[in-house]
Amino acid sequence: MTDVRDFVTAHRADLLADLDQWLRIPGISAQPEHHADVHASAQWLADAFTRAGFPTVEIWPTAGLPTVFAEWPAQDATAETPTVLVYGHHDVQPVDPIELWHTAPFRPTVDGDVLRARGASDDKGQLLFHLLGVRAHLAASSRTSPAVSLKFLIEGEEESGSPNFETLLADRADRLGCDVVVITDTGMLAEDTPSAVTGMRGLIVGTVSFHGPDLDLHSGSFGGAVPNPATAIARLVAALHDDEGRVRVPGFYDDVLELSATERALLERVPFDRADFLQTAKSRELTGEGGYSTLERLGARPTAEVNGIGGGYQGAGGKTIVPSDAFVKLSFRLVANQDPARVRQQVDRFICDHTPDGIQASVDWEGEGVAPCVVGIDTPAFGALSRAVCAAFDAEVLLPTREGGSGPEAAIEQALKVPLVFLGVGLPDDQIHAPNEKVTLTMLYRGAEAAARLWTEFAQLGRSGLQS
Amino acid sequence: MTDVRDFVTAHRADLLADLDQWLRIPGISAQPEHHADVHASAQWLADAFTRAGFPTVEIWPTAGLPTVFAEWPAQDATAETPTVLVYGHHDVQPVDPIELWHTAPFRPTVDGDVLRARGASDDKGQLLFHLLGVRAHLAASSRTSPAVSLKFLIEGEEESGSPNFETLLADRADRLGCDVVVITDTGMLAEDTPSAVTGMRGLIVGTVSFHGPDLDLHSGSFGGAVPNPATAIARLVAALHDDEGRVRVPGFYDDVLELSATERALLERVPFDRADFLQTAKSRELTGEGGYSTLERLGARPTAEVNGIGGGYQGAGGKTIVPSDAFVKLSFRLVANQDPARVRQQVDRFICDHTPDGIQASVDWEGEGVAPCVVGIDTPAFGALSRAVCAAFDAEVLLPTREGGSGPEAAIEQALKVPLVFLGVGLPDDQIHAPNEKVTLTMLYRGAEAAARLWTEFAQLGRSGLQS
Repeated sequence: MTDVRDFVTAHRADLLADLDQWLRIPGISAQPEHHADVHASAQWLADAFTRAGFPTVEIWPTAGLPTVFAEWPAQDATAETPTVLVYGHHDVQPVDPIELWHTAPFRPTVDGDVLRARGASDDKGQLLFHLLGVRAHLAASSRTSPAVSLKFLIEGEEESGSPNFETLLADRADRLGCDVVVITDTGMLAEDTPSAVTGMRGLIVGTVSFHGPDLDLHSGSFGGAVPNPATAIARLVAALHDDEGRVRVPGFYDDVLELSATERALLERVPFDRADFLQTAKSRELTGEGGYSTLERLGARPTAEVNGIGGGYQGAGGKTIVPSDAFVKLSFRLVANQDPARVRQQVDRFICDHTPDGIQASVDWEGEGVAPCVVGIDTPAFGALSRAVCAAFDAEVLLPTREGGSGPEAAIEQALKVPLVFLGVGLPDDQIHAPNEKVTLTMLYRGAEAAARLWTEFAQLGRSGLQS
Repeated sequence: MTDVRDFVTAHRADLLADLDQWLRIPGISAQPEHHADVHASAQWLADAFTRAGFPTVEIWPTAGLPTVFAEWPAQDATAETPTVLVYGHHDVQPVDPIELWHTAPFRPTVDGDVLRARGASDDKGQLLFHLLGVRAHLAASSRTSPAVSLKFLIEGEEESGSPNFETLLADRADRLGCDVVVITDTGMLAEDTPSAVTGMRGLIVGTVSFHGPDLDLHSGSFGGAVPNPATAIARLVAALHDDEGRVRVPGFYDDVLELSATERALLERVPFDRADFLQTAKSRELTGEGGYSTLERLGARPTAEVNGIGGGYQGAGGKTIVPSDAFVKLSFRLVANQDPARVRQQVDRFICDHTPDGIQASVDWEGEGVAPCVVGIDTPAFGALSRAVCAAFDAEVLLPTREGGSGPEAAIEQALKVPLVFLGVGLPDDQIHAPNEKVTLTMLYRGAEAAARLWTEFAQLGRSGLQS
């Protein structure tokens, strides 16, 4: 019986060959001229699943670009055998500004332990470690099918905001049943610091418009006597936070799940270099909600942010008017267990309460918003992930991290109503969404090993063990 | 000896004939294609002064468009004979939108008591009542020169912001010496409510820029942890006023001359129709500094107004960024005895005090600003004006009003350091600066009579009486 690590090491060339083929397909979902490439990318991946041994491989059309679905049931499944669904995406980001790339984005280039290409880390490289991982899992356990029933759901529009993903989850609900979801589209803190995302923030986005006088007024003839919508919208924005950086919308924190002492202690072990962070943000200072560290603020605390503001005269010099209109674009990042619909209502009420007499307010929300999601670090699923990753990385602890951003993961959690874990091996310097995207090959090999071990861990827990 | 009113009545046709000639000259100072017309307008006015009997008439060039200067000393002047300088302007506003005019703007049309043309009220009609007024003054007093030494300073760029006026005042200081200034470029409350402006607000205008991170940041990855300049600028704006509408800039009210009980009582007699005002402003509500009426807020109280605000994403939909930059365009209307330079310093300090850590602030002021000016209603000059106007209008009281706007009057007051009074007979519905400008002829006749009587009143006061 082969050892998992030995198998992965022995078959590195297979992974590299797959990468070299797939990364040449410029499947940019945001650019219509590349939509044929996204279809080609889906076909390549489907073929790769078939080659790896998956008995069921399907390309699911959507109103937009196709999703790849692959399934490999455990042949000896019992009522206790878990079904695991892996989520990822096969589309990639645009490459502009192309002039900043040092190598052609769709000509994969290996330089020592680094492979450069658009999609190398986000998300093709990470999906390919799974293909090698399944093979290692079979080889190491002398099985002809995995110890868990595996499903892969690989989207083709993630880099375009997943516009058709929730519909697909609903339409294909009968095929997506599972006991646990593994998200493979994230990263770790550092090559020697294995970590796993344990939360993504939710999001609601909207525009508040204040209408004052029906025309711009001369500020000499009317200034100081009629309501100014630009002043009013500024006062609304200023009222959003108290002096400690806490959001003042009544009820906003009611449903917020506070970090446990254990999680705070683990988060404190996450390396954070203030100077590095400021350099990346090109900001001169850190700020935020009082009583929390920057990492806690980013991952575990909700925010109210001004994304844009406008109104009145914006040209050169001055123009002495009382403007007719002003607006502010707001977004609120949410954390478990805030409900986007409930927060929207709270903000609506807050805006209403902060609209002065004589101002007409309207609020335009962008869709329903995105729910936050959280992985309990004391859950059996996270325990299994921790054991698998620690073994692959020869590490003692898997550090939990929190993502500040928002993604389709919450939609999956809400649609499938099962626990999530995040297995991703990107690194902070992978330059995803930027020129010169790269992946560190060692991270992919370790990812393959972790995945191979994770299926065994899940099988050992069994369905009842996962639920407890 | 002729009565002033009889003379004016007997010579109405002269005034109408002058109006018909001068109003045909389209002297629009803001439009270079009409600059030759502004020169022609100056020449026409110079000739008219000469025809009226002024012994000295000069056209003064400036770096822009010419000023007309006319002088008629009292031949029997003593050390007690006052010199009076009348200020007005011979240029006119543009006529766009031309399609909204019911008659051609430069074809004066008389319809009963109304004469329509661009400049009829602002300011050609008002200057022409002076020419008739001087003749009536001489006829009624059987004099061959006026009882006071008269100077007329008639600008050619007032409708373009008087860019060369302060320089002219300085350059010609030796010719402009006087004991009192009469501003003729304003209006009255109604045909049956003679009134006089007793104050113009000053003005400073500037742009405050806040710079946060050096680039727009992803609000998921950074939101809640770095300073947001749009939030910060909104908090600055919100801090400008307290909940009672008072400006919170420290020291802002230190130099403000409070209205006397007498002035407040007189201002209360000024008709104010709330519904009409709201309709004109197309606003749904009145607001402003607590404890003051709308007319007091507009004329006698200083303001801080947002003219424009901008920053971050302003397009359709949402964009979840922490913006790099935000700005606000502010103007402050000032009242006597606020000093623009001092208020600018106070605001600079306030901005500095309200700039959070990590934000870089800059303030760009538009020039030096405009000083406020005020006419004391208990001064001898205002008493003389009041007697002259009341006699011409058969009225019992001259109501003091305050202009909310700002003009070159303060520059005159500061340059010449003598008292000002405002003798203007425009009406609120004269549509100055708009299509279908008109003047009510009866108001011009009364203006001529008031001016004729005012020279006699000033002569009776004498120089020492004017100063007391």
